[in-house]
Amino acid sequence: MSQTKRLGGQTVEFITRPTILGCGVVVGPKEAEGPLGEDFTCAETDPMLGQDSWEKAESMLFTKAVSECLKKSALSPGDVNYMIAGDLLNQCTASSFGLRTLGVPYLGIYGACSTMAEGLSIGAMLVDGGYASKVIAAAGSHFCSAEKQYRFPLEYGGQRPPGAQWTVTGCGAAAIGYGGNIKITHTTTGRIEDMGIRDANNMGAAMAPAFVSTVKAHFADTGRTPNDYDLIVSGDLGAVGREIAAELLDKEGFAFGDNYKDCGMMIFDSKKQDTHAGGSGCGCSASVLCGHILPKMEQKKISRLLFIATGALLSPTTTLQGESIPAIAHAVSMEI
Amino acid sequence: MSQTKRLGGQTVEFITRPTILGCGVVVGPKEAEGPLGEDFTCAETDPMLGQDSWEKAESMLFTKAVSECLKKSALSPGDVNYMIAGDLLNQCTASSFGLRTLGVPYLGIYGACSTMAEGLSIGAMLVDGGYASKVIAAAGSHFCSAEKQYRFPLEYGGQRPPGAQWTVTGCGAAAIGYGGNIKITHTTTGRIEDMGIRDANNMGAAMAPAFVSTVKAHFADTGRTPNDYDLIVSGDLGAVGREIAAELLDKEGFAFGDNYKDCGMMIFDSKKQDTHAGGSGCGCSASVLCGHILPKMEQKKISRLLFIATGALLSPTTTLQGESIPAIAHAVSMEI
Repeated sequence: MSQTKRLGGQTVEFITRPTILGCGVVVGPKEAEGPLGEDFTCAETDPMLGQDSWEKAESMLFTKAVSECLKKSALSPGDVNYMIAGDLLNQCTASSFGLRTLGVPYLGIYGACSTMAEGLSIGAMLVDGGYASKVIAAAGSHFCSAEKQYRFPLEYGGQRPPGAQWTVTGCGAAAIGYGGNIKITHTTTGRIEDMGIRDANNMGAAMAPAFVSTVKAHFADTGRTPNDYDLIVSGDLGAVGREIAAELLDKEGFAFGDNYKDCGMMIFDSKKQDTHAGGSGCGCSASVLCGHILPKMEQKKISRLLFIATGALLSPTTTLQGESIPAIAHAVSMEI
Repeated sequence: MSQTKRLGGQTVEFITRPTILGCGVVVGPKEAEGPLGEDFTCAETDPMLGQDSWEKAESMLFTKAVSECLKKSALSPGDVNYMIAGDLLNQCTASSFGLRTLGVPYLGIYGACSTMAEGLSIGAMLVDGGYASKVIAAAGSHFCSAEKQYRFPLEYGGQRPPGAQWTVTGCGAAAIGYGGNIKITHTTTGRIEDMGIRDANNMGAAMAPAFVSTVKAHFADTGRTPNDYDLIVSGDLGAVGREIAAELLDKEGFAFGDNYKDCGMMIFDSKKQDTHAGGSGCGCSASVLCGHILPKMEQKKISRLLFIATGALLSPTTTLQGESIPAIAHAVSMEI
């Protein structure tokens, strides 16, 4: 094991191994009807969460998920040194409005759908470095506010092409500190990759090269191989992006087998639920990680995890201006 | 001096004292005509920066400021472990698009106009903690893209109330590592404060309580007093916010004297330049810090600085939905 924390390249190895103290996750009704529904113990039956706008509903997802995370971690807000959060809404208001009464020092982040991995990475560094004893990282999204902001108002009933993904209504929050069972061992911070994809309805294709870039960096930096992980999970490449990623990985000589899954394909049954290429949004990987994967690790059903959340860094304006879609992916390794 | 890095409360003290290695700053023509014009050696004469949209011009501000920062710091992109950047455009595209070809591991952040201080805080922790040897923090904004996104298209010629602020066209970037003259000694991370202000044309009033909250935390955590600093500078409270802040500080028993200034009031001559309450935007405090204050520190004209950038965490949607304006302020102490 390296004696320095920084392994070189894009990866940090944590010698003190910060742990996950507890998680909170809140999802919408469609996510609760999906294949992971049983794992989502905090599912809302009302997609408005009792609010009068989709944006306020999305903020409420954050309020509830962080509250649940505090409860599960046996923490009060005063115990938490930093709240690190972000979302897809303009000016990251879902997270900042949803968490504005918490009273915890706040670091807003933006990595599109890679936000949860970015938050875990920064959070683990702040704990390992001694700047914090407890940190909460959170990320979320809401289908209806995302459709309104990025595509069309729901009432318009826009048709979606087969490669399109379905923004997850959900928020995941994880508390980081010492004393838990799941140890954070490495983080690999991604570089922005832009391969010239211009179709905002095909974000999987835009994100796949960023995913592969971070995978390559992670294995080169750590000397590990895909077989060292029980589960390698991408954030929300979806069916299209996953296929492209598999092809690119194959060319690079990485043999990903049955231990590779995609959160976007896990959370919905695309055929039954009409979600096309799968789930997406900050809340996709955050909900699957906090609601499904980390509990499975606590139950010792998964021992070594590589979580790689991917983000498409576009905006509706850049798309209208004919720009291509830069993307990024951040990886976090955890083990029991 | 504390032997632990974390002082308690919201403040971290850096024992290893990461330093500023060099800065880059690019501003627009109006900023170059202002009181600090002589300090802005990289002023653009064309507010479009040769691009075909305001958004692309804003991205170009980032490209140029970071390039200048690398040059001044005698670094190549391969020397930099993390790029930490953010802006006001939807989905933070000015920074991510402007820096997408840099090839540096990228952490996107969002703190509205507090972004530069957030980036410096995280950057200093990553260097002090041994996760990076070099980090660049950058923040920027563009008047025209901000007007288009937050208010009205320029062609509309909207009238601005006296309390309104003028978004700075500019970007500042600072490289952090060891070996420079300006030492980063403390960072105080702000909490979100929302005192119920709903007027999006009066962001100074919304941000003043966040500023005061972070000021109180900083002095309580460090045991310092305002007299310990040669210069205490707020990000962009502007004339209205500064007056409110002064009143609130007075009530709290803090005697801020001539050593307290506001970047928003420094960058423009409001009367001559018709900028109403002063400058604002991520680029305001970033440009004034990187173009004016840090060079003055290098020249030993300022020895001890408390830089407190303030951010209003609103969006046009939250304003239309009648929401109040949460705000945040982050502080960074530096000394020669």
